[in-house]
Amino acid sequence: MILQSNSLAESVAKTTAKESDHSMSQPAIIGILTVSDRASRGDYEDRGGPAIQAYLTELMSSPWVSAARIVSDDRHLIAAELRKLADESQCCLIVTTGGTGPAVRDVTPEATGDVCDKMLPGFGELMRKVSLEKVPTAILSRQTAGIRGKTLIINLPGQPRAIRECLGAVMPAVPYCIELIGGPRLETAPEICRSYRPPGA
Amino acid sequence: MILQSNSLAESVAKTTAKESDHSMSQPAIIGILTVSDRASRGDYEDRGGPAIQAYLTELMSSPWVSAARIVSDDRHLIAAELRKLADESQCCLIVTTGGTGPAVRDVTPEATGDVCDKMLPGFGELMRKVSLEKVPTAILSRQTAGIRGKTLIINLPGQPRAIRECLGAVMPAVPYCIELIGGPRLETAPEICRSYRPPGA
Amino acid sequence: MILQSNSLAESVAKTTAKESDHSMSQPAIIGILTVSDRASRGDYEDRGGPAIQAYLTELMSSPWVSAARIVSDDRHLIAAELRKLADESQCCLIVTTGGTGPAVRDVTPEATGDVCDKMLPGFGELMRKVSLEKVPTAILSRQTAGIRGKTLIINLPGQPRAIRECLGAVMPAVPYCIELIGGPRLETAPEICRSYRPPGA
Repeated sequence: MILQSNSLAESVAKTTAKESDHSMSQPAIIGILTVSDRASRGDYEDRGGPAIQAYLTELMSSPWVSAARIVSDDRHLIAAELRKLADESQCCLIVTTGGTGPAVRDVTPEATGDVCDKMLPGFGELMRKVSLEKVPTAILSRQTAGIRGKTLIINLPGQPRAIRECLGAVMPAVPYCIELIGGPRLETAPEICRSYRPPGA
Repeated sequence: MILQSNSLAESVAKTTAKESDHSMSQPAIIGILTVSDRASRGDYEDRGGPAIQAYLTELMSSPWVSAARIVSDDRHLIAAELRKLADESQCCLIVTTGGTGPAVRDVTPEATGDVCDKMLPGFGELMRKVSLEKVPTAILSRQTAGIRGKTLIINLPGQPRAIRECLGAVMPAVPYCIELIGGPRLETAPEICRSYRPPGA
Repeated sequence: MILQSNSLAESVAKTTAKESDHSMSQPAIIGILTVSDRASRGDYEDRGGPAIQAYLTELMSSPWVSAARIVSDDRHLIAAELRKLADESQCCLIVTTGGTGPAVRDVTPEATGDVCDKMLPGFGELMRKVSLEKVPTAILSRQTAGIRGKTLIINLPGQPRAIRECLGAVMPAVPYCIELIGGPRLETAPEICRSYRPPGA
């Protein structure tokens, strides 16, 4: 099922797994999961995953590596990849792209719900709100977010433009969320994304 | 349980069911389900169903027929009517009115969830947002939307004024949603509702 | 589990339970449930509960008494307290504070869902919307609301400032909601909170 990989992320993931802690010197591991039948078969070039990678490179100022995967629009396979990225690769954050619409093969939100301990409805609400300022079909997106152990999972749309809008909208809350669930301290480039921590946090 | 019917819609539904495809020459079938104990007993004139019929007549510019029903506020009966309208009458869209509040007999959203394969939370969010601009009690509405097979189901409030506000807010996304789930191509009157399809869709 | 109590509320609750009706002369009973491991152990002074009590004192103009409790961040214990406040103390409204974030011990929304007959997603949406105008981390709050029998349960955040923002935002819809579910008639001080009832309601 793993059609694309990031060898640096893989090796870091193994090291981190052995040490089972998050020292400041270790880069944070961010999973990027492209969900697409066509991209997983190679019929179609994955544009969502690279768009996330590029935007995170702009947003993040603390060290990080990515673990990128492509999976078909299959609920069980998506859930299995999310579990592996969270539990084995020890991602503090997993961002998915694709599979959030109303079509019969769009099941990314269901797979996300399957693996999460708790859901964060505010992420989907805010992402739909910002997308709705651009297109009325934003209400068709079922994207959500949730927590699995020490991993925050966020669904993003498939279109590169919409990825930037949605990830940009929620990113200011992501570093504090990851700290609250026991993950590493992330920092964002303040000129692009002013991430927020409550006073005293 | 069927207290009101639309013979044109019925006959069209049977024809379509036999042919099991959506040719361009067939009118789209839109279910209108009034959920009300009082209206189903005849104690009260149904105002929600006719308000939807009238507003859809303004909104739609492609051919359509309605299949109108009235059912009491009973979760199993509502679910049964939704299944019949979707599976037998082959409605591409079902719009309900009534039963979305907090009172003990208000169970339309639960019945909708019972019959849907997937939910579309963005519809409820947007409808509550537009209603909240008018009345603070809009947050009491639990209206939602979801997909059953090739049918989009949308809950609307009971009040005729609120029906126009809510249906008007979500309608621009409805034709594209129905295409994504394999239904017919609907067109709306552009001077009233500018429905949107993404470029290339 | 009951670490704090309000003897007036207790005695009123018993009286009301015997009579099992809401006469106009009886004050309404409002449950205030602080959810906090630290406050329940006494490691930390409860600030959320008193903040709700103080703000309700400003908001309400009809007679009411509170039934205040503190419970640890345990899903079963929270659910048990909610059941007791609703079923035994006959609260028409229960307001919780704390336990709505993403951390592993934050389970107030899950416990609320466990005891409710139906959920009211519009409350959480509006509370996150007003909090988001202040802090981008508002999307991390999972607060919700729901109905158990004749009781409305609303989750509020833990921070006193956020309690006022959130309760102030939803309060205009609370008296009408409580009437719809068969509770007593509440009145709010119009210069602070203009509660709304639809014409004819």
